Amino acid sequence: MVSEDNGDLRALFEPRGIAVIGSMKEGQGEGYKAIENMLQFGFSGKVYPISRSSGQVLGLRAYPAVAEVQDPVDLAVVATPPPSVPALIEQCGQKGIRAAIVISEGFAEASDEGARLQRQLVDTARRAGMRILGPNTLGVLNTANDLVTHPYHFGCNKPPAGGIGYCTQTGLLTFGVHPIRDKAYPISKVCDFGNKCDVNEVDLLHYLADDPETKVIVMHLEDVKNGHRFMKAARKAVARKPVLVFKPGRSEAGARAAASHTGSLAGDDQVYEKAFRQAGVIRLNTWREYWEVPKALSLQPLPRGNRIAIITATGGGGVMSIDAAQDDGLVPATFTVATMRHLETLSPRLARNPVDLGPTMAMRDNPFALYEEVVPAVLADPNVDCAAISCYASPPVVEVFRRLVRRISDISKPVTLFGYGFDLAEMEESARQFQAMGLPMYFDVELAVKALGVSAACSEARSRLAGEIGH
Amino acid sequence: MVSEDNGDLRALFEPRGIAVIGSMKEGQGEGYKAIENMLQFGFSGKVYPISRSSGQVLGLRAYPAVAEVQDPVDLAVVATPPPSVPALIEQCGQKGIRAAIVISEGFAEASDEGARLQRQLVDTARRAGMRILGPNTLGVLNTANDLVTHPYHFGCNKPPAGGIGYCTQTGLLTFGVHPIRDKAYPISKVCDFGNKCDVNEVDLLHYLADDPETKVIVMHLEDVKNGHRFMKAARKAVARKPVLVFKPGRSEAGARAAASHTGSLAGDDQVYEKAFRQAGVIRLNTWREYWEVPKALSLQPLPRGNRIAIITATGGGGVMSIDAAQDDGLVPATFTVATMRHLETLSPRLARNPVDLGPTMAMRDNPFALYEEVVPAVLADPNVDCAAISCYASPPVVEVFRRLVRRISDISKPVTLFGYGFDLAEMEESARQFQAMGLPMYFDVELAVKALGVSAACSEARSRLAGEIGH
Repeated sequence: MVSEDNGDLRALFEPRGIAVIGSMKEGQGEGYKAIENMLQFGFSGKVYPISRSSGQVLGLRAYPAVAEVQDPVDLAVVATPPPSVPALIEQCGQKGIRAAIVISEGFAEASDEGARLQRQLVDTARRAGMRILGPNTLGVLNTANDLVTHPYHFGCNKPPAGGIGYCTQTGLLTFGVHPIRDKAYPISKVCDFGNKCDVNEVDLLHYLADDPETKVIVMHLEDVKNGHRFMKAARKAVARKPVLVFKPGRSEAGARAAASHTGSLAGDDQVYEKAFRQAGVIRLNTWREYWEVPKALSLQPLPRGNRIAIITATGGGGVMSIDAAQDDGLVPATFTVATMRHLETLSPRLARNPVDLGPTMAMRDNPFALYEEVVPAVLADPNVDCAAISCYASPPVVEVFRRLVRRISDISKPVTLFGYGFDLAEMEESARQFQAMGLPMYFDVELAVKALGVSAACSEARSRLAGEIGH
Repeated sequence: MVSEDNGDLRALFEPRGIAVIGSMKEGQGEGYKAIENMLQFGFSGKVYPISRSSGQVLGLRAYPAVAEVQDPVDLAVVATPPPSVPALIEQCGQKGIRAAIVISEGFAEASDEGARLQRQLVDTARRAGMRILGPNTLGVLNTANDLVTHPYHFGCNKPPAGGIGYCTQTGLLTFGVHPIRDKAYPISKVCDFGNKCDVNEVDLLHYLADDPETKVIVMHLEDVKNGHRFMKAARKAVARKPVLVFKPGRSEAGARAAASHTGSLAGDDQVYEKAFRQAGVIRLNTWREYWEVPKALSLQPLPRGNRIAIITATGGGGVMSIDAAQDDGLVPATFTVATMRHLETLSPRLARNPVDLGPTMAMRDNPFALYEEVVPAVLADPNVDCAAISCYASPPVVEVFRRLVRRISDISKPVTLFGYGFDLAEMEESARQFQAMGLPMYFDVELAVKALGVSAACSEARSRLAGEIGH
């Protein structure tokens, strides 16, 4: 199923060998730091420092030029001053290197002279048949082969291997920043587009649609280079996995600001809105949604419909969840008579949606065991498509769900958790354990519901596209 | 300015002495734990354990009954089984105690028998001229005298003394939970209404409007007991300080769920919406807004209008901020010619709103000093009412703002910060230092703007009410 569009991109994400070209000054040079980060991550391929002055860099043999490397090199990571880059790309092409990540800043984003150099860089790469990511990029991250290319001095926290493929057009949303470093999102690939002189969202849609590790594609976009190609690639991807887009510039003033930031015409948001809808792409609207929603789609199946069951440990949380459900296009499920009877046998106060476990738990010696009696029954109800469950994010509740998780996953309907608690460190440790079981936990009431709303929208979009293709 | 409504409430928040009535079993009893928490907090008044069996509790002399305490006691904290409570309240009344916090569960929220006991409790208190908070409450917290009343076994993290007065109707939003424990919000008072058998939102509006420590009143409400009295109290409070309300049940299904949770008729949300608008109360809509927005109003002045300047370190963040501004009723400010000229002298790329510092900082040896050249000039612009500033949440930027904060506060327009970074622990430490300078920092792009939008709405509401009262 690998499409012809993907041959070149594999050199970016799955290179056998990488030539790193940039200052090798110990502890400071961008080339040095990029190599240090690759080694710290444990990149499974070969790394070749290119340096005229250094014989060795971080224990690796250095070469005075890429031409001197005898082994196969698929990717160059370039972090030298802009005027030197076109000639280096030419040398890479001669060596047979298929792709380059140009980390250097100072191209089209900086000045007219930079824009000229960027055009020269693109022309050189085209002639050599090479693909370029960047310039002005941190490059890529791939958890399948432990590849990372950024040259930041602070090193890396490696995210767990998982199903989210993130692509972004701003450093604020890429893998250097704290959410990826600190939140342990389950990641397959990350791509920072930088100036998008060549590799762009269309390439990544093709590549990530085919990537078996990626379960959900998430793109931050400030513009779309080619609307027609984007639509075609997006529809193909959406048929196979959810595609979520965070495109700021929804407001008129925001669109103007985006145009001024990227230098390209960002365009009328209503045009994008319509195109995204036609392509089955679901939109994320905030910084936090961009970071938090995808993990649920990575860990859980898509629902067949939009009927939500809310199982809450506090009445107040149930009310907030219902509000969120309405905001997110979900409707509260009406339980079947059989489910209502089952809940009534446990306690008459449980037989409604939201199911408020609080008062019944308060009367039990072993309160949290109530989840085992309620959750599978509610989730198995044919009128229920998905469930948001609130719980005390703590070791005893983790243990209850450890017994319960198999029964939940057998029912194959998406579940999200809202975790509350008294101590954030304990809550975060519990969330990590829930995630290891495949259960996404949120600390915002509304996000647990939003993630299900987005999942339902993705499911609906996929069915709609399948129907259109079928006709 | 103390209104007559407040005399009784002072006994709840500012008691000279507290009688604690409940199990004194070491390390476990609710009475014992409540006292332990009071001592750990460092409550500045006297605490009198009431226990027939213990001579001493945690080093304090215990008394067999409240009548035996010779010193003045203003408040009782009661955590005994419901059937015992009415008689205890009667004894408290005879001793001259003016208010009681009934922590015990098992009243109207639990059963018909509980509802009967709750009515009996209210009748007893009325006859004795006592006020009751609860039952089914964690009680109050007051940072002015280090008072806390909850009986949770995990103890307390004391929030810093500050300007937020929080009142809530659900345990999920009260002071036991992690946001207050872990986030160091600047707090004046917290009140958990519990079942609201007596003390309710109207009392707290009166009390907190008069409380000099409270700069912003924040209420989570599931219902309003008396619409007319609420409106009157709210308008009086709004004239003096911002009043923010988080009332879930916005959706029809949510309103039904709220009614089923509280047992009272929650009512049509449109009626509430209209009442809140008339009273000048500004609505918060999510869990995160409830926790995060108030700190900005506590630390910063209200703006005179809704024209926002956005100063960003990344173009992408600027676009997101502008979208948020539109969502929150703010408009991007158009700078005066003088401001534009000043920005142009620094760099032609800076002369627009959002002001994107990124490219100019990239060319500077001392990049963060650019904040000192840009922020005061933009904030002083007569066309600017408020500013959202994004920055790298890190020690060098903290130092820049330490030099800058006096000039910001002299201009007397509200400022919020969006902090990004690479390491959450470093970011949180920076945010604490910004807060100590009076600058609220957010880790969500949109929240930094939302806080200013809410501030502008509060300012507009206050002017409108002043105009109405003037006519």
